[in-house]
Amino acid sequence: MPERAPLRMLFGRDAWERVRGRIQEAGLAVQPLLLEPDGSLADGDFQAAWFSPELFALKQDEAFLAAVLGCPTVRWMQSGRSGFDHPAFAQLARRGVRLSRSTAPAPAIAEYVIASVFDRFQRGPERRLAQQAQEWRPLPFKEIAGSRWLCVGFGEIGREVGRRARALGAHVTGVRRSGGDSDCADLVVTPDRMGDALAAADVVVLSVPLTPDNDGSYGRDFFAGFRAGALFVNVGRGQLLDEPALRAALDSGRVGHCVLDVTRVEPLPRGEWQWTHPQVTLTAHTSGIGSGLIGRTDALLIENLGRYLSGGPLLHELNPENFA
Amino acid sequence: MPERAPLRMLFGRDAWERVRGRIQEAGLAVQPLLLEPDGSLADGDFQAAWFSPELFALKQDEAFLAAVLGCPTVRWMQSGRSGFDHPAFAQLARRGVRLSRSTAPAPAIAEYVIASVFDRFQRGPERRLAQQAQEWRPLPFKEIAGSRWLCVGFGEIGREVGRRARALGAHVTGVRRSGGDSDCADLVVTPDRMGDALAAADVVVLSVPLTPDNDGSYGRDFFAGFRAGALFVNVGRGQLLDEPALRAALDSGRVGHCVLDVTRVEPLPRGEWQWTHPQVTLTAHTSGIGSGLIGRTDALLIENLGRYLSGGPLLHELNPENFA
Repeated sequence: MPERAPLRMLFGRDAWERVRGRIQEAGLAVQPLLLEPDGSLADGDFQAAWFSPELFALKQDEAFLAAVLGCPTVRWMQSGRSGFDHPAFAQLARRGVRLSRSTAPAPAIAEYVIASVFDRFQRGPERRLAQQAQEWRPLPFKEIAGSRWLCVGFGEIGREVGRRARALGAHVTGVRRSGGDSDCADLVVTPDRMGDALAAADVVVLSVPLTPDNDGSYGRDFFAGFRAGALFVNVGRGQLLDEPALRAALDSGRVGHCVLDVTRVEPLPRGEWQWTHPQVTLTAHTSGIGSGLIGRTDALLIENLGRYLSGGPLLHELNPENFA
Repeated sequence: MPERAPLRMLFGRDAWERVRGRIQEAGLAVQPLLLEPDGSLADGDFQAAWFSPELFALKQDEAFLAAVLGCPTVRWMQSGRSGFDHPAFAQLARRGVRLSRSTAPAPAIAEYVIASVFDRFQRGPERRLAQQAQEWRPLPFKEIAGSRWLCVGFGEIGREVGRRARALGAHVTGVRRSGGDSDCADLVVTPDRMGDALAAADVVVLSVPLTPDNDGSYGRDFFAGFRAGALFVNVGRGQLLDEPALRAALDSGRVGHCVLDVTRVEPLPRGEWQWTHPQVTLTAHTSGIGSGLIGRTDALLIENLGRYLSGGPLLHELNPENFA
């Protein structure tokens, strides 16, 4: 049998240095092409690319995607992200490039969500003020046990949130188009049936993927269905929201508080209302960057590399119809 | 069969009003004596007493215990608290009064502990500063998944903490004198064997009961065994600690941060170092007062009342040897 030529694959330098040992141990025939920290890139075509998470920290994500788009021979890109709304994904998909996304951020995002809800339920801001003022003030708090959660979007992120909330004794309803059952929820409903659960929810978590169809679609009607004073957490995308409608819902008390890890424009410019609204907790697209992210990301890359090289089905491959 | 006289039992007024319906529904023959909100108390002896949680909020806890101590006919007191270190407990036990304590605070305390650890791991203070400064700063955080916890004291509180930490993916070691196994821990060790787990722990949670034997016994030697920078949470009693030794361990970095819900003197006077130390999170004996506390407390009272009246064994009865 003739030896196959190794797979020529584009990596960021740091990501390659981290995984090269594991790729060699696994006997995977890969020839790397590297995007260097200074932005330089060796000449040559490649067939695959690993869009790894640290490209964002290095601000090389756009350069990396430009290199992939500029390469006519690329057949597959493994992403380190959950979302697939960057326009490059659609362009690649239309050219027939296979795309697989990552489930590695989901456990971190779920911890972020649970932690954020705890801080509100436990009255964190009041506790901190009491300590600052040196006032011994026992503040009764709301338990997660017995609270009702609605996870709008019940992919990996929603399910990881639901699993943890249930383990803490919450009642969880998941919302997804396919309906069905799940160990991570007490009940799963389709979007057209979520009204009752929304009206009963203490916590509403949004984690649907952004698509061309749902830009701005969580607005006045959505918030009008909330139980007054409920807590809203957005770990999907800022573009999902009608942000002025959210602001109005916060001002009216319909939404009691919101936790936003994403905004329509990122980084959010100084002076935007979300920075200073008393009922907004804002973080900088941080929820996925937990300490376990890289380990999970690398493990998925190795797994999918083996599958790709052996012609097997990829884990978490995106359906081209997502981009039709 | 002659009808038995009803059990004469001391209640705070609010507590009685809350549970009277359930006591009557359950057909339990109870004649209440009430401590009124103004401090007045009807004349008459009683055989039992319910030391319910809201007596603390009403600042009637000492008056209630004084009434119990002053009554020569009392045979049983159900407490709403986990701890049994108040001197009245020992006095009553020596007189042969049966004492049963409460497991109702434990789930709330466990939520407090998990929430407190999340706030540190998620870099809550830095996130809040970034929002205040309107700086878009993605801050990588430590996940609970994969972290190592040591629960010193593995009664109801330690087990409720361990159950939740494990559900979130942590590795949990429980410490108790009886050793054995538990679903709430990966490993249970006896106190003389906890050194290795202490040296490996990211989080150390103290929830042993205060007894005459362990006052101030968590001090220099204990903290010297910590992994440098570990997080310490005390939800037991302030008297368990050698507080100056804790302060020294914080100043040296041996203990990275501590979360204190209890202090040797409560309320902690203004000006004490714990209020302002940058590595101390201080709350006002708050951890048990979750929204589910009263429901769980009442349910345990009804259960134990039934058992007492029918001569069955009480749940969570204290062994008189605890006070020998």
